[in-house]
Amino acid sequence: MGRWPDLVQIKEVGPRDGLQNEKKIISTADKVNWINMLSESGVKEIEYSSFVHPKWVPALSDAHEVGRKIKRKPGVKYSALVPNQKGLELALEAGIDGASVFMSASESHNKKNINKSIDETFPVLKEVIEEAKKAGKHVTGYVSTVFDCPYEGRIDPDEVIRVCDRLLEFGVDDLSLGDTIGTAVPSQVGQLLEPILKRYPKEKVIMHFHDTRGMAIANIMTSMDYGITRFDSSVGGLGGCPYAPGAAGNVATNDVLYLLHGLGVKTGIDEKKFQEAALYIQNKLGKVLPSKSLAYTTAQL
Amino acid sequence: MGRWPDLVQIKEVGPRDGLQNEKKIISTADKVNWINMLSESGVKEIEYSSFVHPKWVPALSDAHEVGRKIKRKPGVKYSALVPNQKGLELALEAGIDGASVFMSASESHNKKNINKSIDETFPVLKEVIEEAKKAGKHVTGYVSTVFDCPYEGRIDPDEVIRVCDRLLEFGVDDLSLGDTIGTAVPSQVGQLLEPILKRYPKEKVIMHFHDTRGMAIANIMTSMDYGITRFDSSVGGLGGCPYAPGAAGNVATNDVLYLLHGLGVKTGIDEKKFQEAALYIQNKLGKVLPSKSLAYTTAQL
Repeated sequence: MGRWPDLVQIKEVGPRDGLQNEKKIISTADKVNWINMLSESGVKEIEYSSFVHPKWVPALSDAHEVGRKIKRKPGVKYSALVPNQKGLELALEAGIDGASVFMSASESHNKKNINKSIDETFPVLKEVIEEAKKAGKHVTGYVSTVFDCPYEGRIDPDEVIRVCDRLLEFGVDDLSLGDTIGTAVPSQVGQLLEPILKRYPKEKVIMHFHDTRGMAIANIMTSMDYGITRFDSSVGGLGGCPYAPGAAGNVATNDVLYLLHGLGVKTGIDEKKFQEAALYIQNKLGKVLPSKSLAYTTAQL
Repeated sequence: MGRWPDLVQIKEVGPRDGLQNEKKIISTADKVNWINMLSESGVKEIEYSSFVHPKWVPALSDAHEVGRKIKRKPGVKYSALVPNQKGLELALEAGIDGASVFMSASESHNKKNINKSIDETFPVLKEVIEEAKKAGKHVTGYVSTVFDCPYEGRIDPDEVIRVCDRLLEFGVDDLSLGDTIGTAVPSQVGQLLEPILKRYPKEKVIMHFHDTRGMAIANIMTSMDYGITRFDSSVGGLGGCPYAPGAAGNVATNDVLYLLHGLGVKTGIDEKKFQEAALYIQNKLGKVLPSKSLAYTTAQL
């Protein structure tokens, strides 16, 4: 026991990965209030929106305005998702500390998601990564479906490594490995992290779990066993699963905080203030979010 | 990796621990159908009801009739909760393979729950345990609030051991250690299991987690790290939390099966048939149960 780290870095992806899968559109003013509440709670990194074309993600069509209006708290890194050169330009105008690029480890999922083969995607991301680095920005490479693909099933760790190698070669600062459909169990996490951590320093590896089958907290424990100290998570488990309306999405930051603080791991986040930010967006969305610890708090109010 | 056992024994407690906390009363005929579906799915042990006075648990006032009407599948152990001598007599009449007695490791919780001090509870349980053993029945001792108490906070493992020692001395065959309010994180599981497993063989120890804050699956992983191979769980996470209406209760058997089968651990349970039994009771209760893997399945229907 006692294998967990002293400190864990959490990137809050609720305003982006969370809201992009929600049907209800949140007003720009509410998003700005909410993101400010998140930074006030002590969150050190927030993915505040996506500069993907509004046609694809209408819920985030105000990315530019949100970026302009949020109060930039010193010490907090504000990042955004950028799909291509055009998206990066808009993001730079709106103000970002970091840019996140994305692609899949699975050929079929990549094709369905960004309408290009993996090999066709590489040159697009290479250009974005190089431009973002030239502009002095931190760049994270999201790799999705690293465990299972809804079309292809189990993904070989070698397929994941093939994509990671190229993204690092293009200049990304770190990699966020996504269990996009929330199917992984701890043994799969180990089977992927073993070869990954032989190849890359652990500081470059972020784990991004979805809680679709309730396995995310156990997968985070296992990742920490392997030395991982960086995780993406979403306020209240916001986000749902695009493949099954009503099912859970990103692992809830609230549950992650309950786990980590209970283990004595520091995050720098004030749980009570964070809870308030979660209740704020839950109220705006008008539905109970999937986080069990948030549900417990809500039920007691 | 690969620390988990080949085989795990699951006791399905939904018909008892689950239903006793649900507001909606399920008809006897529906309970019987449901319990028969559970045994058909391959569950080897089912706690089918409680012989606590109906005044305290009106949802289970038909315990006797349920016990008489369920189809006894060979190889399946049917047990029931018995609070005292009177309850045991009724349970024996209705037919049980095993009797479960219960008390708390926390003085205040024991007092609130069974209106007696811990020392006053011992002679009552001693009599029941001895009578049940004389009748040739398996006896399990539930010890609740082994990690935290809603009134006293953190419970010292020595307090848990004090109660376990007496129950074993009275003749219980095994102990089920309950995270009654679902607050424990994996470090607490380790801190309790270390002294417990120095004192008792692991075969005698069953872990009984509630998923109130979403930690149960991680706690089960940690318990398996310590060698535990027996768990209580409830169909769909049925049961809720008596301290916070709307919050999650027992860990969902569906999620436990997803974890274990994903790890390659055998349970003897057919996941698909089990899912059908979960959908059956979810439909009868008319509400979505807390299990995330069940929610995913339900959302796809």
